[in-house]
Amino acid sequence: MDPYQLTATQALTKLKDGSLTVEEYARSLLERIEKRDDDVQAWAYLNPEYVIQQAKQLDSLPPEERGPLHGVAVAVKDIMYTKDMPTQHNSPIYEGDDPKLDAASIITLRHAGALILGKSTTTEFASITTGPKTRNPHDTTRTPGGSSSGSAAAVGDFQAPIGLGTQTGGSTIRPGSFNGIYAFKPTWNSISREGLKVYSLILDTIGFFSRSVDDLQLLADVFELEDDVPPHNDFSIKGSKFAVLKTMVWPQAGPGTVAALDAGAKLLRDHGADVEEIELPPEFEKLPEWHGIVLRSDGRPTFLPEYRVSKDKLAGVLVGHVENEYQISRAAQLEAFDGIASLRPKIDEIAGKYAAILTPSVVDEAPVGRETTGSPAFNAIWTALHTPVTNIPGFKGENGLPVGLSLIAPRYHDRHLLEVSKVVGEIFEAEGGWTRQVYQ
Amino acid sequence: MDPYQLTATQALTKLKDGSLTVEEYARSLLERIEKRDDDVQAWAYLNPEYVIQQAKQLDSLPPEERGPLHGVAVAVKDIMYTKDMPTQHNSPIYEGDDPKLDAASIITLRHAGALILGKSTTTEFASITTGPKTRNPHDTTRTPGGSSSGSAAAVGDFQAPIGLGTQTGGSTIRPGSFNGIYAFKPTWNSISREGLKVYSLILDTIGFFSRSVDDLQLLADVFELEDDVPPHNDFSIKGSKFAVLKTMVWPQAGPGTVAALDAGAKLLRDHGADVEEIELPPEFEKLPEWHGIVLRSDGRPTFLPEYRVSKDKLAGVLVGHVENEYQISRAAQLEAFDGIASLRPKIDEIAGKYAAILTPSVVDEAPVGRETTGSPAFNAIWTALHTPVTNIPGFKGENGLPVGLSLIAPRYHDRHLLEVSKVVGEIFEAEGGWTRQVYQ
Repeated sequence: MDPYQLTATQALTKLKDGSLTVEEYARSLLERIEKRDDDVQAWAYLNPEYVIQQAKQLDSLPPEERGPLHGVAVAVKDIMYTKDMPTQHNSPIYEGDDPKLDAASIITLRHAGALILGKSTTTEFASITTGPKTRNPHDTTRTPGGSSSGSAAAVGDFQAPIGLGTQTGGSTIRPGSFNGIYAFKPTWNSISREGLKVYSLILDTIGFFSRSVDDLQLLADVFELEDDVPPHNDFSIKGSKFAVLKTMVWPQAGPGTVAALDAGAKLLRDHGADVEEIELPPEFEKLPEWHGIVLRSDGRPTFLPEYRVSKDKLAGVLVGHVENEYQISRAAQLEAFDGIASLRPKIDEIAGKYAAILTPSVVDEAPVGRETTGSPAFNAIWTALHTPVTNIPGFKGENGLPVGLSLIAPRYHDRHLLEVSKVVGEIFEAEGGWTRQVYQ
Repeated sequence: MDPYQLTATQALTKLKDGSLTVEEYARSLLERIEKRDDDVQAWAYLNPEYVIQQAKQLDSLPPEERGPLHGVAVAVKDIMYTKDMPTQHNSPIYEGDDPKLDAASIITLRHAGALILGKSTTTEFASITTGPKTRNPHDTTRTPGGSSSGSAAAVGDFQAPIGLGTQTGGSTIRPGSFNGIYAFKPTWNSISREGLKVYSLILDTIGFFSRSVDDLQLLADVFELEDDVPPHNDFSIKGSKFAVLKTMVWPQAGPGTVAALDAGAKLLRDHGADVEEIELPPEFEKLPEWHGIVLRSDGRPTFLPEYRVSKDKLAGVLVGHVENEYQISRAAQLEAFDGIASLRPKIDEIAGKYAAILTPSVVDEAPVGRETTGSPAFNAIWTALHTPVTNIPGFKGENGLPVGLSLIAPRYHDRHLLEVSKVVGEIFEAEGGWTRQVYQ
């Protein structure tokens, strides 16, 4: 197997036992990128020479100075500041902008020995649903989803083992599903979001892409995610209780998602789980509307500077936020903000009764074209509720494209959720009907 | 009157009618700074030549290109990124650090024509209560408060008309009181906090210092603060209802604050207000404890990068946050986070019955020494509740140092609060017993 095909965990084993150098690993990834870049176009900035230079520097470290992510290559969404690469937010206002600053998460990753490969594409400010240039590696006529388009496509296409994303609506879990990979949105604010472009403080959450749950656990270690009760690494589907939740946005689900949710629930039952279909209590009914209100009203102060400086270079929807085009009153804004807050302890209580809640990740397969990155309807509710979410790949839609399902746990049950995701992921990937391929 | 003594609003009048150039204004302020800097030490970075260069550039703008803050000089707290000056957070880890980035608020201020004077001192990361070098201009043996120490001292000492601060506990209102100036903490997230060092996302709020409420209204215009019902600029004390609220931390109040609250309530009554003493309902009792829990638990992810990179250069209290020294459970963290959220609509309802709530700004006068910037006890509750707060100067303590009082309004009643603050400020400044002086 070529090094570029390795998961982060697999690569680390080889990097540690000396059977692979960081430079060899980086060259393998860069070759993969060169081969596939015309089709996928996942990168906003990538400097192969600089990557090799960094790789050599990592190789030169004596073993005792190597970190827990020594040589692990990472694609960084281009709304996250990196002191050695431009950060352009897919905005003409910031074309070529190159502030000498690392986001908090980048400092932590570098300190752990990660190799920052380059900046991956995003929709404008990670805040709109018009796609960037990037194409879905599984079908280049389709979107990879967004707003974390490039990170998800790069990981799905074996151009990087790890991708960094963010989610304010559905910007991590949705592209995770569209690209057939794992995606993880941890509990809100459990990882510092400092040094990322802001859309909404109360919603924005950093997220990760990978092709294995082991890799997510590796990142959870590095970022010190910690539950009150540490999981025992002995989770078994047999005898566990799962909830299946269609949510209030279920009428939007297409055939791919309808079939995946059925199949996922059946697989869990087949493997001995007790699977119960539940509904959200009626007070959750306004949640999607409230999410939209918070998003739009938070966009007012957020994009005021860009509006002032270069309104003509700002996406229409963001101009609309600043101008409060929907005339959202402060009273309505606060009703939404406080209403969502009142639901958070309630969803924790509900989710706490189960090993996890199984719920859709997406409306369906990735849509054709790059005009829209797809609907975040099944993600926005969980972003608002601050719960950790994983996308588990394994199913396919009517056109053979990947369809994932989400697992949900209460806030700060991130490690528990990853443990459950590992076991569920093995089943879904083995028996769900979709198989990951390395496109040549 | 020398130009340095002008409020921003007064300076603007002269800058607009041509009787003062930005360069003349800047030179006057720089002379004032030079004269007083040995005593007050408000600045972390100040480059007089660069200030003059910027001033000349503003003077060269044709009148039609001048912004609403044309030439208004601003002291910027040194946790806010400025692309043309270092941002050092009063941390040895960031000594000399100079990322080429403007905070969102700085972009907006520059676009409005403001003259960024320099970076003002802060406690380490605006996150601890050990003071920086700065001294209280009214008594240099005392602290100016913190964490926005330099901005408050500079405005109190006529070294700048406007100062930018932040508040996570009591970092704007407390130094406002200690320096005898107006301070304004607007509704949480009503102004973008992007590009400021994070302590706690749900608490951190940008704030302003000035020597007049007109100046705060000017800033509220530039940052587009907007209530549902715009104030009519005809607020009258006579016939208005005010609440006096001692809060659950009242036992900490010293003689200066006890006297000021009495005197403030009496002045309002004397001017025809209906003043009612109220208490917070019992469910608010845990608020101070909850604020502390949120602060400490948010400090865990926030300072992880600095902890990893340079633990030995990080303040002990912040090391303690990362190591969770108080062993705050996730359950306790969420109880605090959700508990505070549930109180926000309740305080809005209570505050909405009055023109404003009058409550202490500080425990007492500024304490002697620079070991501590004083107690944020009377501010932290309002920071957590997200309400707008103004500090109104006008009273004095047993040692003749300034003591202010806070006015509180419901969230997103910022413009209303400023209107009330203007009228109340005129009364307190005229009859409260403390008079601002220009020290020579």
